[in-house]
Amino acid sequence: MITLASDFGSPYPAAMKGVISRRTDARMLDVAHDLPRGDPRAGAFWLRFVLPEFPPAVHCAVVDPGVGTDRAALVVRAGEHAIVAPDNGLAIPAARELAAGTAPEAEVEHNPIEVFEIEVESPASATFHGRDVFAPMAAEVHEAGVDELHTMDRLSHTQEFVDIAFPQPSIDRNAAEEPIAVEGEVLVVDTFGNVVTNVPGEVLRDRDTVEVNGERVKVRDTFGEVDRGEKLVTVGSHGYVECDVNDGRGDERFRLSPRQRVQLAFE
Amino acid sequence: MITLASDFGSPYPAAMKGVISRRTDARMLDVAHDLPRGDPRAGAFWLRFVLPEFPPAVHCAVVDPGVGTDRAALVVRAGEHAIVAPDNGLAIPAARELAAGTAPEAEVEHNPIEVFEIEVESPASATFHGRDVFAPMAAEVHEAGVDELHTMDRLSHTQEFVDIAFPQPSIDRNAAEEPIAVEGEVLVVDTFGNVVTNVPGEVLRDRDTVEVNGERVKVRDTFGEVDRGEKLVTVGSHGYVECDVNDGRGDERFRLSPRQRVQLAFE
Amino acid sequence: MITLASDFGSPYPAAMKGVISRRTDARMLDVAHDLPRGDPRAGAFWLRFVLPEFPPAVHCAVVDPGVGTDRAALVVRAGEHAIVAPDNGLAIPAARELAAGTAPEAEVEHNPIEVFEIEVESPASATFHGRDVFAPMAAEVHEAGVDELHTMDRLSHTQEFVDIAFPQPSIDRNAAEEPIAVEGEVLVVDTFGNVVTNVPGEVLRDRDTVEVNGERVKVRDTFGEVDRGEKLVTVGSHGYVECDVNDGRGDERFRLSPRQRVQLAFE
Repeated sequence: MITLASDFGSPYPAAMKGVISRRTDARMLDVAHDLPRGDPRAGAFWLRFVLPEFPPAVHCAVVDPGVGTDRAALVVRAGEHAIVAPDNGLAIPAARELAAGTAPEAEVEHNPIEVFEIEVESPASATFHGRDVFAPMAAEVHEAGVDELHTMDRLSHTQEFVDIAFPQPSIDRNAAEEPIAVEGEVLVVDTFGNVVTNVPGEVLRDRDTVEVNGERVKVRDTFGEVDRGEKLVTVGSHGYVECDVNDGRGDERFRLSPRQRVQLAFE
Repeated sequence: MITLASDFGSPYPAAMKGVISRRTDARMLDVAHDLPRGDPRAGAFWLRFVLPEFPPAVHCAVVDPGVGTDRAALVVRAGEHAIVAPDNGLAIPAARELAAGTAPEAEVEHNPIEVFEIEVESPASATFHGRDVFAPMAAEVHEAGVDELHTMDRLSHTQEFVDIAFPQPSIDRNAAEEPIAVEGEVLVVDTFGNVVTNVPGEVLRDRDTVEVNGERVKVRDTFGEVDRGEKLVTVGSHGYVECDVNDGRGDERFRLSPRQRVQLAFE
Repeated sequence: MITLASDFGSPYPAAMKGVISRRTDARMLDVAHDLPRGDPRAGAFWLRFVLPEFPPAVHCAVVDPGVGTDRAALVVRAGEHAIVAPDNGLAIPAARELAAGTAPEAEVEHNPIEVFEIEVESPASATFHGRDVFAPMAAEVHEAGVDELHTMDRLSHTQEFVDIAFPQPSIDRNAAEEPIAVEGEVLVVDTFGNVVTNVPGEVLRDRDTVEVNGERVKVRDTFGEVDRGEKLVTVGSHGYVECDVNDGRGDERFRLSPRQRVQLAFE
């Protein structure tokens, strides 16, 4: 199986699928082609969220603001999975997760990912490496098998690659170890305007309300527990604190966008 | 075959596909993931329109404003098809159609759908039952076979489920049984702004014009028969009266949105 | 393999997939369903860009502003490929490319495409030939095989079909044969606002800047070579000159839309 993820919109990914289907009968599944444009950190977040749900597969992921520059192209092995991606960090958090197991908050003590650099043949295009570099390599890796990466002519093992670290929130706790104030950051905003922060969901445990940047908001398990159009703070399916609106856009109502600060305070 | 339909946008449905592909090799086809958000009635309309085109399959459909509340999760059997969906009516009109045959206006005298409630294990997430409840069950039903629903441990047959009835228009007819005035309602607005009403297309038979909420509009078989930017009233591919604009948005030009009244009058 | 392309948005293409999967187990891949609405020329551009990447396949392509009129429905054979499409030119540039080879600028001396008209049975719908005419025929052609088009009952060979010629730019050159002024036209604007012209990329060779409709703009190989929000002129992956903005919309910033004139001047 080959999964595809990109910020290419439409119809560019179809060219990648054509290229792949000339080389392999592998099944193809789309992860998304509307990943936040040119933002490898946001792409890395979504890949880490989605890829661990899949059985062993080759994942072709392209969010590549540096296309055409001298950034390297990589194949990252994580257990029985391989991710083919530009060297900008996009693949790394998902690869670590795939290597370690699927729990979002798992501590990764040992990091068995292996990174290979692709020797890129002079490509037909300076602007569409998805079609000309990453898709053909994904097909090649699929045909060779993930265990054969070290034998593939155009791959060379490397210790140097761009990493992405998601920012960590700072959490103040009281004497009972309950969180009382959190300084976090917006990681991504999803299709529906839900604002996903980097704050672990456990800070909301047993709370009925929270102050978000100074404004008191209800803490609820589900959208259905507040009125339509009402704000809520909840724990999303990725395990992080989200700032949402039932049947509305959290990003607009909370005035929050990626990389902005989010201060949470509890009474 | 497993079809997927939701209002999840992107990339959430990919997590469902990962979950399914860990459990079965079944082919997956997307129906849509931009169904009107949080609106089971509109979702039910589109499922009833699309699903009867498919050969026997398991359909995983999630438009679920009540996620995380105590609404039940269902498997609905309709002939050789099964629909896995929340208990909010979403699956029922399509299931009846699948059970009865594919004609949009078929009278369903006998209703052989069977409804099973899913015993939901404590889920990993309160907000993403698509991934945690419906997708795994769709894979399980696919593997077991639609004939085995009554033998599956986590399913129990039920007579109680939420139904959705599409509103019926009221049609006044003259002595010759020709419609002269219709009081209908907007069911859905499609991607392009075409306004789909609940009025059966036959009321337009042999008509050249119709008054829509007091304004005279041409009745035509196809968009191409009016000028670009001109309004028309036509019969859509689902068999209902549509208020459209050639190369424009009917919803904006007719100022109509779902659940609004539409009065049609003929001379 | 059957590919699908249309301007149908969602969820209409799913009805086509249902129809196809009742008739064949062929794999289906989406090219795009957000092709520019009602614009066969733009659709023809994208099909010519994408389809040559695919191995031999049946391509079902529907951008059909004339649906319901008496425009013919076609199967176009191009080598081992077949394109099922309305007779409005949509399929022809891609078919020629598929017949001639994949190089975007290949001169097509010999044109071996073969065109067959579909005898359309009275369809269920005047507005959804994608479901009622093109999808079933794509499935039928896939099952029969591209070599059997001349034996299929409902197909008759024809020499008459609507062609689409992309406009050619006029290029003034100096004594050294270097381009000094080009009068071109916008072919399409892609999802991200990149403005694709009909001017071949070679005119930018060895140039550092170009005047676009009177304004001097940098010529660069990649987006990454200008600042975020800055304009650039580059050669897209289709081989044509593009007017783009790094992390922004070229169509808005250059105030260009399809069919508008683009004048390029070099010092």
